Amino acid sequence: MVDSPATLNIAAKLAQFADYWNPRIVGSYNGNEIRLAKVQGDFTWHSHADTDELFFVVAGELGIEFRDGVRRLKPGELIVVPKGTEHRPFAEAECHLLLLDREGEPNTGVNPSEMTRDKLEVL
Amino acid sequence: MVDSPATLNIAAKLAQFADYWNPRIVGSYNGNEIRLAKVQGDFTWHSHADTDELFFVVAGELGIEFRDGVRRLKPGELIVVPKGTEHRPFAEAECHLLLLDREGEPNTGVNPSEMTRDKLEVL
Repeated sequence: MVDSPATLNIAAKLAQFADYWNPRIVGSYNGNEIRLAKVQGDFTWHSHADTDELFFVVAGELGIEFRDGVRRLKPGELIVVPKGTEHRPFAEAECHLLLLDREGEPNTGVNPSEMTRDKLEVL
Repeated sequence: MVDSPATLNIAAKLAQFADYWNPRIVGSYNGNEIRLAKVQGDFTWHSHADTDELFFVVAGELGIEFRDGVRRLKPGELIVVPKGTEHRPFAEAECHLLLLDREGEPNTGVNPSEMTRDKLEVL
């Protein structure tokens, strides 16, 4: 018999950490990692060679700078950044995110920086 | 130059339809479809042979019956049903969902029923 899968409460998981730009892995879906992150301030320019990246805003506001302009997202909004697309996330105040990335993908993709996190904690 | 991707407001997309158990496609991520659905009442038992299925509750409450028990989800909670796992969603009152399924997957997976929707509208 297959055990039924567990449910995941996003707010409860977010309450388990406080640091910025350091995503935690909270689940998996078809070879992709479901991640949660708290962000504030500026991230570095980067792109992901082999994976799209989904950002869903749980709380606060997220900005993403692209080479042709800026997108701003509020809670209940999401965006999918296609693989290969340069982007730079930022948040003027604390923002909580749900992310999808292919398994093992560093948060800075092909552009390592002082913000790189490539061994993410599993919550 | 790459055009920046569009943002997606979940509530605005949900306002565009009213029928139950008829998911709309609102985006794509790594070969998977981002879908939105309104549900109420009982769905049919089924499983998906080649894709996990993610349910995220936007509003209302969702139940999912498994062969070994029932899981109940509130807004801000999600569950990933692994491929091959039999499940039967239900909702006692109207519930709004964000779903992920591999591209083209029928909502009833390998178990066609009167609830099957295999040509989903793109919003």
